[in-house]
Amino acid sequence: MHSRSPLTVLFSPASIALLGSFETPGSTGNIILSNLAASGFNGKIFPIHPDKPSILGLPALRNLKELGGTQPPVDLTVIALPAGQTVAALKEIAQIHGRAALVVSSGFKETGHKGAALEKELVEIARNSNIILLGPNCPGLINPGANINISFSGAAAAPGNIGFFSQSGAMFSSFITWTQKARLGISTVVGFGNKAMLNEADILAHMSRDAGTGVIAGYIESIDEGVRFMNIAQLTTRNKPVILMRASGTSAGARAASAHTGAVDGLDMAYEAAFKQTGIIRAQNSAELFYLSKAFASQPLPQGPGLAVVSNAGGTGIIAADACEKAQISMASLSEKTIAQLKNILPPYASFFNPVVAVGEINAEGLAKTAEAALQDRNVHSLLVIITPSSFFTLPQVTEKLLKIFKKYSRKPIFCCFMGEENLMDIEAVLGAAGYPLFSFPEPAVHSIAAMYKYKLWKDTPMPVNVSYRRDIHKARGIIASARTTAKTSADSGGAVELPARLAHELFHAYEMPVLKTKMARTSDEAVQIAKQFGQSVALKIASPQITHKTDVRGVALRLDNPSAIRSAFTDITARVRRLRHDAYIAGCFVQEMAPNAAHEITIGFKRDSRFGAMLFFGFAGLQQEVFKDLSCRIVPLSLGDVQTMLREIRGFPVLTGTRKHKTINLTAIEDVILILSQLAQDFPEIQEADCTPVFVSERGAVVADMRVLLSKSCE
Amino acid sequence: MHSRSPLTVLFSPASIALLGSFETPGSTGNIILSNLAASGFNGKIFPIHPDKPSILGLPALRNLKELGGTQPPVDLTVIALPAGQTVAALKEIAQIHGRAALVVSSGFKETGHKGAALEKELVEIARNSNIILLGPNCPGLINPGANINISFSGAAAAPGNIGFFSQSGAMFSSFITWTQKARLGISTVVGFGNKAMLNEADILAHMSRDAGTGVIAGYIESIDEGVRFMNIAQLTTRNKPVILMRASGTSAGARAASAHTGAVDGLDMAYEAAFKQTGIIRAQNSAELFYLSKAFASQPLPQGPGLAVVSNAGGTGIIAADACEKAQISMASLSEKTIAQLKNILPPYASFFNPVVAVGEINAEGLAKTAEAALQDRNVHSLLVIITPSSFFTLPQVTEKLLKIFKKYSRKPIFCCFMGEENLMDIEAVLGAAGYPLFSFPEPAVHSIAAMYKYKLWKDTPMPVNVSYRRDIHKARGIIASARTTAKTSADSGGAVELPARLAHELFHAYEMPVLKTKMARTSDEAVQIAKQFGQSVALKIASPQITHKTDVRGVALRLDNPSAIRSAFTDITARVRRLRHDAYIAGCFVQEMAPNAAHEITIGFKRDSRFGAMLFFGFAGLQQEVFKDLSCRIVPLSLGDVQTMLREIRGFPVLTGTRKHKTINLTAIEDVILILSQLAQDFPEIQEADCTPVFVSERGAVVADMRVLLSKSCE
Repeated sequence: MHSRSPLTVLFSPASIALLGSFETPGSTGNIILSNLAASGFNGKIFPIHPDKPSILGLPALRNLKELGGTQPPVDLTVIALPAGQTVAALKEIAQIHGRAALVVSSGFKETGHKGAALEKELVEIARNSNIILLGPNCPGLINPGANINISFSGAAAAPGNIGFFSQSGAMFSSFITWTQKARLGISTVVGFGNKAMLNEADILAHMSRDAGTGVIAGYIESIDEGVRFMNIAQLTTRNKPVILMRASGTSAGARAASAHTGAVDGLDMAYEAAFKQTGIIRAQNSAELFYLSKAFASQPLPQGPGLAVVSNAGGTGIIAADACEKAQISMASLSEKTIAQLKNILPPYASFFNPVVAVGEINAEGLAKTAEAALQDRNVHSLLVIITPSSFFTLPQVTEKLLKIFKKYSRKPIFCCFMGEENLMDIEAVLGAAGYPLFSFPEPAVHSIAAMYKYKLWKDTPMPVNVSYRRDIHKARGIIASARTTAKTSADSGGAVELPARLAHELFHAYEMPVLKTKMARTSDEAVQIAKQFGQSVALKIASPQITHKTDVRGVALRLDNPSAIRSAFTDITARVRRLRHDAYIAGCFVQEMAPNAAHEITIGFKRDSRFGAMLFFGFAGLQQEVFKDLSCRIVPLSLGDVQTMLREIRGFPVLTGTRKHKTINLTAIEDVILILSQLAQDFPEIQEADCTPVFVSERGAVVADMRVLLSKSCE
Repeated sequence: MHSRSPLTVLFSPASIALLGSFETPGSTGNIILSNLAASGFNGKIFPIHPDKPSILGLPALRNLKELGGTQPPVDLTVIALPAGQTVAALKEIAQIHGRAALVVSSGFKETGHKGAALEKELVEIARNSNIILLGPNCPGLINPGANINISFSGAAAAPGNIGFFSQSGAMFSSFITWTQKARLGISTVVGFGNKAMLNEADILAHMSRDAGTGVIAGYIESIDEGVRFMNIAQLTTRNKPVILMRASGTSAGARAASAHTGAVDGLDMAYEAAFKQTGIIRAQNSAELFYLSKAFASQPLPQGPGLAVVSNAGGTGIIAADACEKAQISMASLSEKTIAQLKNILPPYASFFNPVVAVGEINAEGLAKTAEAALQDRNVHSLLVIITPSSFFTLPQVTEKLLKIFKKYSRKPIFCCFMGEENLMDIEAVLGAAGYPLFSFPEPAVHSIAAMYKYKLWKDTPMPVNVSYRRDIHKARGIIASARTTAKTSADSGGAVELPARLAHELFHAYEMPVLKTKMARTSDEAVQIAKQFGQSVALKIASPQITHKTDVRGVALRLDNPSAIRSAFTDITARVRRLRHDAYIAGCFVQEMAPNAAHEITIGFKRDSRFGAMLFFGFAGLQQEVFKDLSCRIVPLSLGDVQTMLREIRGFPVLTGTRKHKTINLTAIEDVILILSQLAQDFPEIQEADCTPVFVSERGAVVADMRVLLSKSCE
C-alpha cells in the first residue's frame, strides 16, 4: 500500500542546498538557514555563497556547479533569491541534475502579468529537466521525523502522525504553533505557494502513500485538478481521514457567476459535492479545522453512535446533549448494571442517566470512578468528560485519576472538556502527551466525536462503484454531428449551440431516457394525424427556436382529446404567437402525449465546470429551485450511493416519500434518469450543459417532459 | 432611569447572616463562609452556630434570634443547611424580619415530588413574610464591586460592567473563571437555582436598572414568565445589550410536542421570536456566549458596517473576508488617500486593498502604521488586526506598538486575533487590561463585530409600537358565547371546542377580516339561490363537522357558473361523502364565491403557549409549511416592524416580491390579515388556536378562503 512516493526526494531529501543572501540577520535566507541548521538534519547542508567559505558555521560552496561532481547530486535546492534571479538559479540546478527545488521567493503570479511570465518560465525549465518544483511564493516545508525545517517558523514541531498542507502561509505557520500547544505531532507540514507545478493533488497523493501520516488536514482556496484530486481522495479516505477547510477567496460576484441557475453558489457546490463523494471531512472554519485534526490525530474512531457524557455539573450535560442532537449522534442508554454501579458511587441526588451528573461536591476519585462506570458499558462507544471549576479537586488531581482509568479503555475514544479554567496550558500538555484531546467548550468536542463516527461509517462502506450504462453511442454521435451541421446555418447562443428540440428528443431516445412521445406537426392536419398515432389525449406546444418560455406567450394547450379541439388549438396558438412575437420563426406545433398524472415536477441537469467536469443537479422544478435553491449536486461519474444520497439530501425529499395527497414516488425511476444523464455527460464531453425540466414523477415512474441540450462551441 | 431596584438588598446587602455547618473543611458552609470572609466585604457577617463563639475567625451568634434586636435586621441570610432544615430556618428569618434569603441547599424540585412540596413551602413562607428568595439549589451570587462572594468559587472576580445570570451552576462557575482569563470585569454574577421565587425576569429587571451593569449576559434553559420577561427585555435592550444562550434541556420528543404543525420545534421558535422581538442577542453555543460578552463589554459599538482587516499574512485575510460575507457586514472600501498612505508604508508587493496584507516580513512598527492608516479612514467603522507567527517581531513588541495607535481611535471598535501562538495568556492579559478583546481565530472576531453592528441598528430603531385595531368585540363575544352553548350538545376535540364553520365565518366578519363570501345551503335549491345573490361563479364544499380535509373525500366542486351545474354538483358531493363517510353528519354544502385569481396560497395562524401567550405563524400553505417548515413566528402583540420582518424572514419571501409568472404581491394586505388575527388573539384569550389556510394572495390583496378557530375548554 505504501509504495515509495516520487515526492520523497522533496520531503525527505538526503542533501539540501540553499541559494540566498544569508548575511543580514532577519533576511529570508538567514532565517531559513538558521532554522534548518537548528533542526538537527542528518544529511548534508550546502549553503551557496560566492565569497564566504562558511555561513552560520556551515561550510559554504561558491556555486551550485561545485556540487556537480558529487554523486548523487543534491536532492533538494532551496531558492530564496529575488524573483528575477530564480530562473538562472533553476537552470543551474538543472545543469547539475538537481532533483527538487523549493522556491521561497515571492514576486510571481501573485503580483501580475510579469510575475506570471517568470513563473511560467520556471515551470518549463522544471518540466524539461525533471525537477520537482514546489512554490514559488512558498512558505516552506517541515518534516520533524527527518529533522527538516525549511521555513520561517522557528518553532520546533514534534514528530507525529498529522500531515498538513496549506495554500496560505498564515495557516502554515499557525498550524505549526497550534499543534505544539496541543502537544500534537506532525509528519509533514507544507505550503504550496503559487502551485506552479505541485498542487494539492500531488501533496495529497504523497501523504496518502506516506506511512508516517495517519491524518491528513489542509487549508485550500482552490483545487486546480478537480477530477484527479477526487480520484486520489477517493482512495485515500478509505485509509486515512482527510480534513479540509476551503475559504473561497473570491468576491460574491465571482462566486455567483459559476452557478447553475445564476443564483446558487455553483462553484462552492462543486467543492461540497467533491468532498461528499470522496469522504473528505469539511471543516467550516479555522477553529474547526484545528480541533478536528486534534480529535482525529489523538483518538481511535468510535465503533458506534453511543456517546456518554460525565460531568460534575448539570448545565454542561444539557449543552452536550443539545449538541448531540444537532450532530446526529446519540446519547447512549446506560445499561441497568451501569446505573446500579453509579448508584454505588454517587449520592442519591446525582443524575444516573446519561448525561451522568456526578453532583458538584464530587472529588477526583469519584469522577474517575464515574467515568469508568460509563466506559465499561457496552452501549457506550465514546466518552466526554466535562469538568467545571470546583472546590473539591484540582485539575492536576482529576487529570491524574482520569488518565489511569482512560488507559484501560484505549479502544474507545475519550474526550475531555475543562470549562472556564484560567490556565489550561499545563493540563493540555499532560492530556495531550497521553493522547487525549482537551476542549474548552462541550460543543466542539461533541462535534468532533460525531465527525469521527461519520467517518467510521464512510470507511466501512464498500468502495463506490460508478454506475455505467451502455447506450447507443454511435447513433447519439450522429445526432450531435447533424446538429453541428444545422447550427452553422442558424444563430448561436453565447458561443454554444443549442440542440434543436427534435434532435434533443432523438438523442434522449437513443440513450433510452424515458421521454414523453413528441412529434412536430407543421399543420393542424398533421397534428390530428399524430394524435391518432399516439391514441390518447395530447398537448400542443408552439415550435419555435426563438421561444424558450412557451407558456409566457400562451403557446401551450393541454388535454386535447378530439380532432376539432386539436385543430382549433393549433390555429389559436400559432396565430397568437405570430401576433405576439414578430421576431420568432414558427415551425408549427409539437404534439406531445399528455403526461401521466404527475405527482410532482422535478429538474435534473448537468453543467460543466473547468475544474471538476460535469456537475449534476437535482431538485424540484419551479419555486423550490428558483427561490429556495433546494438543489443537490454531484460530480459525474456517480455511484449508486451518490445518486441515492443526492435524492435524500434536498430539503424537499420527504415530499417524494409520500404526502397526504400523493403516494411514495418511484425513486428508482428518478435515479435512472439521473444515471442516464450522467452517462451522457461522460460519453459526450462536448455537451456543455443538459437540462431536463420538468421531469414528471409519480408512484409509477418518471418521464422527461422537456429538455434542453447545449453543445460547447470549442468542439466544433 | 436607574431607580433603585428592590433586589438591591439581595445583591448589595449591608449585612449577611449564614446558616450551615462550617466546621468540616470542604463542606458547603465552610467553603462559602471562607470565600465570603476572603472577599473583603465591608458590612457585617454573622455566622450562626449553636455552640461555637467564633467561626473562621468571625464572631458567631448562637441563633438568628440574637439578631432580632439589631436595627435594621439582617439584609441577607444564606441558608446552607440540609433541605429538611430549610423551612424552619426560613421561618426564623421571617420572625426576625430578615429581608432576603439565598438558599444554597439542594434536594428540592430537582429531586422529585417530595422536594417540590418542600420548595412550595419555602415560597409560601417567603411570600407571606415579604422575603426575597433566591434558589433553592442555587450556586450563589458574586458582586465584586461590593466585595461580596457568596459561592463555591474561590476565584476573585474583578469588578466591571458585565452582569451574568445562569440557570446552570456549571455555567456560573465557568463564566467567572473565564472572565478572569480575559481580564474582564463583572458587576454581578448570579445563579437562579430552581427559580422558586426569583427568576430570569426579576434578575433581568434588576440588572437593567443597575447602573454598574453595562452588558447583560445569561444562560437559560427556560423562561418562566415569557410575557413579563419580554416586556422587561424590550426596555432593557434600548440601553444595554442582552446576550443569551438557551439550551433546550428537553428531549427531542418533548420539543416536538409544542409545535404548530407537530413537526416544527414550536417552543424553540417561541424563544427565537421572543429574542428577535425584544432585541436580545442569541448566542448559539457556549463559546459564542463567552466571546460575545467579551466583545460587547470591551469595545464601543461600530457606527457603520465597514470593517477593515489588517494582517501580516494573506490567507487569514481571505478567511476574515469570507466570514464577513456570511455575517452580512462589509469589507470597507479604503479611500484613495488611505491607499496612498499604505503605499508609503508597505513594500510594493503588499496588498493595499481591504483585507490589507502587510507582507510576511513586516515588523511591529510597520503593522502599527498600517493599522493606523486603516483606522483614520472614514469608510472604516471597525478594525480587525490578525497576526500570525512571524520571525520579524515578538507578540509583546507588536502589542505595545498597536496599543499606542489603538488608544488614539477609541471611538472605533478594534479587535485582535493572534493565530496559532502557543501561549497567549500574558498577551491576552495586556490587551484585556487595555480593553481590547483577543481572539484565536478570525471568524468569531468577525461574528462579534457583526453582532455589535446589528445591535447598534436595533438601538437606533425607535421603540416599537404595538399595532392595535378596534373591532366589534361585543359582537364577537356573542358569537363565541353561542358557540359555547352549541358545543355542549356536540362532540369535543381533545378538550377544546372547535367553532362551527358558520360561526368562525361570522367571527372573522365581525373583525373585518377579508374572507370569501360563504353561506351554508341545506338543499341544492338553496345553493342556487345563494349563488344568484353572489352574482358570480361559485364553489361548493361539503359541510360536515366531522370532515376536516374536504378534498380527501372529493367534497369540493369549483367554478360552477350555472344553476344546473350547481344542482348536480350538490347532489354528487353529498351523495359521495355520505357513501364514503358513514360516520359524518352532513349538514349540506357551503356555497363560496370563487377566489380571485390567486398568485399564491399562504397560511396564517396562532397557537397559545403557556409561557409566551399567542404565537403567530406565517408561511406559504402546503408543502412549504408541511415539508420545508418555512414558517416565521412572532409573539402577540406585534409591532408593524414585527409584521414586516416576519414576512421577510421566510425563505420563500422572494416569491412574494414577484416572479416571472406573478407580479409583486400586496404585502400590506397580508400584514393586515396578520394584525387582525393578532388583535383577535389579544381580545380573546379563550381562543386557543386559530388558523387561516389557505389565504389567497395576489397583487390586488389577500382573502381568507378557509379558517378554523379552537376555543380552550378551560374557559367554559
